[in-house]
Amino acid sequence: MTASISHNASNQAIRINPDRLIADLHALRGFGATGTGVVRRALSDMDVRARAWLARRYADAGLIPTTDRFGNVFGADPAHPRALLIGSHGDTQPRGGWLDGAMGVIVGLEIARAAQEAGFDRRLGIDAVCWSDEEARFDHFLGSRAYCGLLSDAEIDAAMDEDGVRLIDAIAEAQYADLPLRGAEPSRHAAYLEPHIEQGPVLDSAGLQLGVVTAIVGAREFLVSFAGEANHAGTTPMALRRDAALVMIRFAAKLDERFAALADEAIVWTMGRIAVEPNAPSIVPAAAAITVQFRGPDQALLDRFQAELTHVLDEIRRSAVPVTCSSRLILDYRPTPMDEAMIEIVARAAERVAPGRWRSMPSGAGHDAQFLAQYMPAGMLFVPSIGGVSHSFDEDTAERDIIAGCHALALAAEEIAMS
Amino acid sequence: MTASISHNASNQAIRINPDRLIADLHALRGFGATGTGVVRRALSDMDVRARAWLARRYADAGLIPTTDRFGNVFGADPAHPRALLIGSHGDTQPRGGWLDGAMGVIVGLEIARAAQEAGFDRRLGIDAVCWSDEEARFDHFLGSRAYCGLLSDAEIDAAMDEDGVRLIDAIAEAQYADLPLRGAEPSRHAAYLEPHIEQGPVLDSAGLQLGVVTAIVGAREFLVSFAGEANHAGTTPMALRRDAALVMIRFAAKLDERFAALADEAIVWTMGRIAVEPNAPSIVPAAAAITVQFRGPDQALLDRFQAELTHVLDEIRRSAVPVTCSSRLILDYRPTPMDEAMIEIVARAAERVAPGRWRSMPSGAGHDAQFLAQYMPAGMLFVPSIGGVSHSFDEDTAERDIIAGCHALALAAEEIAMS
Repeated sequence: MTASISHNASNQAIRINPDRLIADLHALRGFGATGTGVVRRALSDMDVRARAWLARRYADAGLIPTTDRFGNVFGADPAHPRALLIGSHGDTQPRGGWLDGAMGVIVGLEIARAAQEAGFDRRLGIDAVCWSDEEARFDHFLGSRAYCGLLSDAEIDAAMDEDGVRLIDAIAEAQYADLPLRGAEPSRHAAYLEPHIEQGPVLDSAGLQLGVVTAIVGAREFLVSFAGEANHAGTTPMALRRDAALVMIRFAAKLDERFAALADEAIVWTMGRIAVEPNAPSIVPAAAAITVQFRGPDQALLDRFQAELTHVLDEIRRSAVPVTCSSRLILDYRPTPMDEAMIEIVARAAERVAPGRWRSMPSGAGHDAQFLAQYMPAGMLFVPSIGGVSHSFDEDTAERDIIAGCHALALAAEEIAMS
Repeated sequence: MTASISHNASNQAIRINPDRLIADLHALRGFGATGTGVVRRALSDMDVRARAWLARRYADAGLIPTTDRFGNVFGADPAHPRALLIGSHGDTQPRGGWLDGAMGVIVGLEIARAAQEAGFDRRLGIDAVCWSDEEARFDHFLGSRAYCGLLSDAEIDAAMDEDGVRLIDAIAEAQYADLPLRGAEPSRHAAYLEPHIEQGPVLDSAGLQLGVVTAIVGAREFLVSFAGEANHAGTTPMALRRDAALVMIRFAAKLDERFAALADEAIVWTMGRIAVEPNAPSIVPAAAAITVQFRGPDQALLDRFQAELTHVLDEIRRSAVPVTCSSRLILDYRPTPMDEAMIEIVARAAERVAPGRWRSMPSGAGHDAQFLAQYMPAGMLFVPSIGGVSHSFDEDTAERDIIAGCHALALAAEEIAMS
């Protein structure tokens, strides 16, 4: 690890320990390790055991551990009434990678621990956090939304996993039922930093080491449906057909062209699910449906994409083929910009640790930070995902990149805490 | 039925009886009637009973009935060593219409019966036939292919329905096992005429009463497959995607445009089945496949369509997106023209019965006639399907059109028998 230690500039107060960082990351991986991946669904026995281990790790570091009813675990700096909060989520996808969430949790632990060791004079303490159920076993971003007061009693009562297990029963099973609804008061936290793997190929394919997140993208999804008429594929002349799939294909091809013409570098669009009825080679399709999802950091461009979808659908409607078209909005998340000052501080730290080998970028995936950002200045730092792979047992990041990310975030944390 | 009787020109020898025709059609419908539809799968108990009834009906008409091992039933004109053969198939789809096949069987019965009654001096006798298993319970066009010697012992041994019932067991169950492999010698038959419902919308939508079939179309079907890479729909920039479904959509839209530019009035094309993997709104599709089927009477145009498919696929391959494309031929039936002389005779009869209210047309569906046409002059006559509906309980044809079809085919039969 000698190469990494050189990142610790002589004038730096928080000196992270790369060996300890990597050792703890592997220790957390042990809770649910399955081949190269990890299975640690929120509030499962393995998750509960991992959170208990983490709370002991926080205590060993001189932090005050608390766990709330949803399983969020906090490690509080004991000497400061207000603090910078650093962390991510501890739960995984049903077949998750070992770093998605976990890396940010352990980086948070290491920076808060190193800050305790440094004992330097600072305006803000440094707290660590491990959010619960970001991966939506029961509900999207459950832990961070609960902390932010964005989860209603009705949602809590209704929440259920795919196997029909109710959230409140899982909380009881985890022995969390008597814990406070909030393990920490948001008023305690002056800012939030979240380190995370990119989960995409941008950094890896460009040979960069760090990504400074400027915004978490907004997402909209439409289900576009077409209704025609089933007919014999041999006996029905083209002019008498009402082929729903053919109209869908024309719509999708045209929409893709129009989107490409409107796009900036950051926006993406996906038509990921297609259904055709009756879906038989010798029957003219009676019905077809396609999902159109687009994500980007620029709300105005998302609006233009939506307008274009409506426009193309109108053009298709005006064409000669008597197929009925309709679209329905399925998802709508607004883009969440990161705090300008936080972006600057994190970028400065990135340049110190990886000069010329970082970039600013939006996050195409959702993160707990998008809810925290509604209540306090928030920032995020990405490290590369090898091959862009995530939500997979194959997910991985080079150890030197994880360490570089921790170094950079420690620099940023120090600047925030002392400012 | 007085309106129909006027079709019987005073110089006509074969005088059909419309009431008897319709009554027998409804009698056959009774074997398997289910609501407005009919369930009479080949070699089922209901089918075997219907064939026994038909054999009695042939005998009552003065014809010599024979049934072969596959269930084909023939009614032979006893006074003539050679004959014109008229009929269609007696089995139905799993949920079939009441006229598909059945109409042609009863029209054949009525014309052969009327010829017996007329006792006019003719070169050829008039035989009637009811083919078995045109609808492929065990094998496509089983009965007519067996009669034509186009069914191998290996195919017979292997043939099995969707429930795993073997053809040879169904033959034994029907008590057909000891019957001859052929109920009639093809050398007996000088020509074949098949009356059938159109099973498409051409006649009905144009307000025409009869269709003179010029050819049974050829059909080719390809499965075109695309292989890319699954990726997160939020974090993967457009330039780094290998979206298999998007490439499929571009291919399909372009192919449809090219086919439309090449098409004549008779060719049709259908992309009826689409499969996308993993088919999730938030995942860039890793794989996609689409069936491309085209049918038409012109073999050269089918060849041009196939070449165009290959050409468009090559263009798609040369485009920037690194998605692998491949195509595989699934089906290939050559077009089968009807006999020129038969077309002329049937057309002359159609003009006499429905002056100005008939047209020449290819058959977009396959028929037993396409196999008979390989061994003897064959012709077909269509009557309209209301709304173009077939292979459905809703299949129907106006009674006056059925009667007009029978009149016209009787005129054609008389001309052929006397020529």
